[in-house]
Amino acid sequence: MESVEKKEIKIEETKIEGRNAVIEAFRSGKPVDKLFLLDGCQDGPIKTILREAKKGDTIINFVSKERLDQISDTGKHQGAIAYAAAYEYSEVEDMLALAKERGEAPFLVILDGIEDPHNLGAIIRTANQAGAHGVIIPKRRAVGLTATVARTSAGALNYTPVAKVTNLVQTMEELKKEGLWFVCADMDGEVMYRQNLTGPIGLVIGNEGEGVSRLVKETCDFTASIPMKGQIDSLNASVAMGVLAYEIVRQRMK
Amino acid sequence: MESVEKKEIKIEETKIEGRNAVIEAFRSGKPVDKLFLLDGCQDGPIKTILREAKKGDTIINFVSKERLDQISDTGKHQGAIAYAAAYEYSEVEDMLALAKERGEAPFLVILDGIEDPHNLGAIIRTANQAGAHGVIIPKRRAVGLTATVARTSAGALNYTPVAKVTNLVQTMEELKKEGLWFVCADMDGEVMYRQNLTGPIGLVIGNEGEGVSRLVKETCDFTASIPMKGQIDSLNASVAMGVLAYEIVRQRMK
Repeated sequence: MESVEKKEIKIEETKIEGRNAVIEAFRSGKPVDKLFLLDGCQDGPIKTILREAKKGDTIINFVSKERLDQISDTGKHQGAIAYAAAYEYSEVEDMLALAKERGEAPFLVILDGIEDPHNLGAIIRTANQAGAHGVIIPKRRAVGLTATVARTSAGALNYTPVAKVTNLVQTMEELKKEGLWFVCADMDGEVMYRQNLTGPIGLVIGNEGEGVSRLVKETCDFTASIPMKGQIDSLNASVAMGVLAYEIVRQRMK
Repeated sequence: MESVEKKEIKIEETKIEGRNAVIEAFRSGKPVDKLFLLDGCQDGPIKTILREAKKGDTIINFVSKERLDQISDTGKHQGAIAYAAAYEYSEVEDMLALAKERGEAPFLVILDGIEDPHNLGAIIRTANQAGAHGVIIPKRRAVGLTATVARTSAGALNYTPVAKVTNLVQTMEELKKEGLWFVCADMDGEVMYRQNLTGPIGLVIGNEGEGVSRLVKETCDFTASIPMKGQIDSLNASVAMGVLAYEIVRQRMK
């Protein structure tokens, strides 16, 4: 079940050289995995790069000029070389096209504010294995495709499209016109085993702390719950998503 | 679904004061969460404590004598105060007794070498919610009940017994005499939905990288697989455990 986790996951990377190019990469939201800076260099642009790097989970290395020259492809590194993961956000249309191409009813995962990159990575991994056609995340108050997410997805990010949208509710309304039904994962819903989860579906998973937000929940067609037999409040977000996604798989297989 | 994760999880803690007591706590394998050491103190026992602390995920704080005096209950801290989580390993018998007490067929989770504390914590959390009566881990080559595990379990560690055994195969053989059947999670098994997972059961989950080891697998009665529709190799260990545990829940509810 677990043969991938210890292998090194190959993620395509692009090398970005030169101060402005590196600053631009950060500003455009590219997930910068590793950064090599000239040791001892303290000027404005380098400080800007450092500040940007510290906002995310970039690994920062201070190295000699010789090492930078060795890494450099262009010979014009100006004391800064960054490695960014070379994946891009998809469009929601791509997901519907993928479902059509496979001759399957669309199965999308909508994440209403997942904050932990390990959860997002595990969810993309599970979405891939459960045969979902894509994962939709909001632009605000949520983690994006960082290097940690890519790593935790165990390569799934190369196969499962992820779209970032401005307004989840609006995207859901548009998808309803395409025939999708939305099921919201929440404690107060009917037990998932008793619901019909076949057909074109969007599975909505809430934030780790707050659950699904009010407007998003109101936009859902129904609410499904996982039976909770324990003494605590909830499941980990990626485990809850996995359990619900596989209930959809089970019902689709019947 | 997720209302617990952001709350502060209250885990009972014990305060351990004095150099020898702190060293002893580390040596006995107690999960030491936080450590307060007298700033600037560099003698032998303090160095030993530091070395032990760095092996695990203890948070180390160097503080003034005044601060230590303030924290101390005994007034005899000798420059070292540790906070250890106050949970203990259970015995396998306790789990069978718990099942009996609840009038349920035993449902145990056997972890064959889980190494990531976040996975172990999430699995204990899921075991609690799925109504499992306990989690069994091996003494060697696996993570134990560290502070990270306790935190990630979101409080479940206070309710779901965890036993540490020397030899998993031997424990499984003994449990077979009690009527348990063992199902091994593995890619090459029959799809879980088509198997009978009711009755007294032990769910065996393998190591993140290597899966279930040969001897443990041979001791299992059957192998169950999760349908994998994606392009990658596997699911995250705690997600895979969640999906299988809830298939057991579903079959038991019917």
